[in-house]
Amino acid sequence: MANVNPPRGMRDFLPEDKARRERVLAVIRETFAAHGFDEIETPALEDSARLHSGLGGDNEKLAFAVLKRGLGHDELAAAAAADDGMLLSDLGLRFDLTVPLARFYASHRAELPAVFRAIQIGPVWRAERPQKGRYRQFLQCDIDIIGDPTALAEAELMLAVSATLQRLGLEGCSIRVNDRRILTGLLEHCGFAPERHAAALISIDKLDKIGVEGVVAELADAGADAAAVLGGVLDGLAPRLAAGIPVTEEAIAGALPAGGDPDAIAWLTELAGALDGRPHGVPLVFDPTLVRGMGYYTGTIFEISHPGSGSSLGGGGRYDGMIGRFLGSSVPAVGFSIGFERILDFVQLPDGDEDDAVALIHDGLPLHALATLKRQLVARGKRVRLERRPRNLKALLDQLAAAGYRRIAFVGPDAADADGLEFRALGE
Amino acid sequence: MANVNPPRGMRDFLPEDKARRERVLAVIRETFAAHGFDEIETPALEDSARLHSGLGGDNEKLAFAVLKRGLGHDELAAAAAADDGMLLSDLGLRFDLTVPLARFYASHRAELPAVFRAIQIGPVWRAERPQKGRYRQFLQCDIDIIGDPTALAEAELMLAVSATLQRLGLEGCSIRVNDRRILTGLLEHCGFAPERHAAALISIDKLDKIGVEGVVAELADAGADAAAVLGGVLDGLAPRLAAGIPVTEEAIAGALPAGGDPDAIAWLTELAGALDGRPHGVPLVFDPTLVRGMGYYTGTIFEISHPGSGSSLGGGGRYDGMIGRFLGSSVPAVGFSIGFERILDFVQLPDGDEDDAVALIHDGLPLHALATLKRQLVARGKRVRLERRPRNLKALLDQLAAAGYRRIAFVGPDAADADGLEFRALGE
Repeated sequence: MANVNPPRGMRDFLPEDKARRERVLAVIRETFAAHGFDEIETPALEDSARLHSGLGGDNEKLAFAVLKRGLGHDELAAAAAADDGMLLSDLGLRFDLTVPLARFYASHRAELPAVFRAIQIGPVWRAERPQKGRYRQFLQCDIDIIGDPTALAEAELMLAVSATLQRLGLEGCSIRVNDRRILTGLLEHCGFAPERHAAALISIDKLDKIGVEGVVAELADAGADAAAVLGGVLDGLAPRLAAGIPVTEEAIAGALPAGGDPDAIAWLTELAGALDGRPHGVPLVFDPTLVRGMGYYTGTIFEISHPGSGSSLGGGGRYDGMIGRFLGSSVPAVGFSIGFERILDFVQLPDGDEDDAVALIHDGLPLHALATLKRQLVARGKRVRLERRPRNLKALLDQLAAAGYRRIAFVGPDAADADGLEFRALGE
Repeated sequence: MANVNPPRGMRDFLPEDKARRERVLAVIRETFAAHGFDEIETPALEDSARLHSGLGGDNEKLAFAVLKRGLGHDELAAAAAADDGMLLSDLGLRFDLTVPLARFYASHRAELPAVFRAIQIGPVWRAERPQKGRYRQFLQCDIDIIGDPTALAEAELMLAVSATLQRLGLEGCSIRVNDRRILTGLLEHCGFAPERHAAALISIDKLDKIGVEGVVAELADAGADAAAVLGGVLDGLAPRLAAGIPVTEEAIAGALPAGGDPDAIAWLTELAGALDGRPHGVPLVFDPTLVRGMGYYTGTIFEISHPGSGSSLGGGGRYDGMIGRFLGSSVPAVGFSIGFERILDFVQLPDGDEDDAVALIHDGLPLHALATLKRQLVARGKRVRLERRPRNLKALLDQLAAAGYRRIAFVGPDAADADGLEFRALGE
């Protein structure tokens, strides 16, 4: 038998998994829609030039490239000679939903409301080295608000996301918040020159993996004094972070050595105040060490933490500079992405009401009788499965129970009408 | 401004279109599930070797190939020298959902029921020359029954599909049915040698485009006598086809010059009888000129016709040989694919009940008051949009009405609780 597995790092979903994924997606879609967001869709493929325009950060390197059609010997030889992959590929698979959103908005701005609240749910592809929990195709669920320069946008995103977490039964989550301006102030306070900020953020972003010592060691080479000061600040923060810093002016200013950027603090406290500090029971906590990897964030950043997960269950931030890149003008924007693949392990949904799922186990019935019974039962709102009586009845009944069928009827050759069927609960 | 359109032949979906597509998909999913089918999902990418294993017919040539990662100068030069595209690509985008289903079934057979009823809904990609109504990414909706060698499988597919057409308000459809064995008998009767059958089927498949004369002309070169006999048969059939041939033994035998294959006739009449000839009001009609393009069909074939559409709205057939190809053993299978992109134009769904969609038009309210009002209304089951009062109020109200919002309230700086809001219908 040939290898029949899906490609490396990609997955098949069997009925039970697929049904669970679709149920979770339905809750997410419904909740986002109730909060006034509109779903859009863009193609899986984008022009290579757009995917590699510098907006995707490190993910750009992970884009799967699609071979140009109809390449002949000469084109291949030219590409080999020039050592230029772009000669071979004009399209690529999207690695996130944010670059496509920027292109979509630039293309359709005239047809969209002044403040556009977008839902995007779809697969993305990354040529990552496959490892546990990392896939080469996975689903992203993003909401973004484009065109609102105020913290109302962040508040609306957090209301929608916290309502979703609540409806999915995801207990114990918190939303960590920070602001890129606070990080900048912190680095200035420690004595990092502006050109060292990017490297410092990359190190701080690894704090939970490499610890304070690791961060200091990484940064010591290029500014020993600043690294040492940062180390002291991070050490001092540790107990406060463990306890949870509320998002209030007093607590934020108290946690930051230089008091922090007043605009950013006012912004964060207005946001948290609007949400009474814990929208739908999900507490907001301040974390001045929160970085978020992408370079395009300009203001608020946030991340969903869950005690059972080593990595975040979602996150996002304000990226006022980016949407305008394809448009030639600046447009405020803020987005929140739910880590769909990661939340699945923690979701607790009530069992669907499957009393209406029935199986008819038949033996020797003519097709007309079977089709009639099925049509009658479906018309009455049942989910109906026909099964020919097998030699191993027990195995079939186990399978039916696992597939959510709750009642069965054995139909003999004289069954003609659904009213005459005798159903029994599976397992009785 | 850079080009910000989606790639050639691919589409963005704006909120209104996307909402309509999702509503139609929800009806399809629900109806198929009610008929006992289970949804599965496979990755968008498949190994190139699998995509090009001969199961995909002409569509194999249209597969987008994904460039191998990390190709260096030497590999490119070698590919150029060998003139072999497979050296450059190990993965490709799926061009249909049938090849992935065959691989999926071979991979997971032990975990699936003996008779497996699969739903697959997902995008496929074809590097077609873009033209009206043909896209390079489009959605396919397939149901397949694997493991049932009887006509009950065809009956279950047709019940599910006809129920879907009915629920989608697609009036005037009919399902044309034929059997590959009847086509074979017809060609034998006309005197085509077996090695000429494939070419003859390709010509007959174009009957509605090139007419009887065109078919005869195409086939005359390689067997003038047989082509002439076929032309006579087709001419004789034309008035019967126009009137519609019921799927009864008498009508089928009467329409076929040599009486037709008795097994195939018994099969078709049992199938039509099981469905009383018109499942959910969709009549079955016999069409001995129906071919269906794919080479893998072995028995029953069928197609949805609609008077408003020049091409079929879906179709399928029995392909007993194919699923086993990756498995090394024979497995009976039959599938039905709804032409999702084509039915959209004909779908008539009742307007959603949007009385619960409300917009709050605000001006100068603090964030806390806005977030509270929104949370209260969403908790009461409303879909809620917040809009800052713009200079051009009329344009906003028009947009809201188009987006399905039915009621609005103006909220001043003193609004504090949703109970105090005065809603008015949009347009009053």
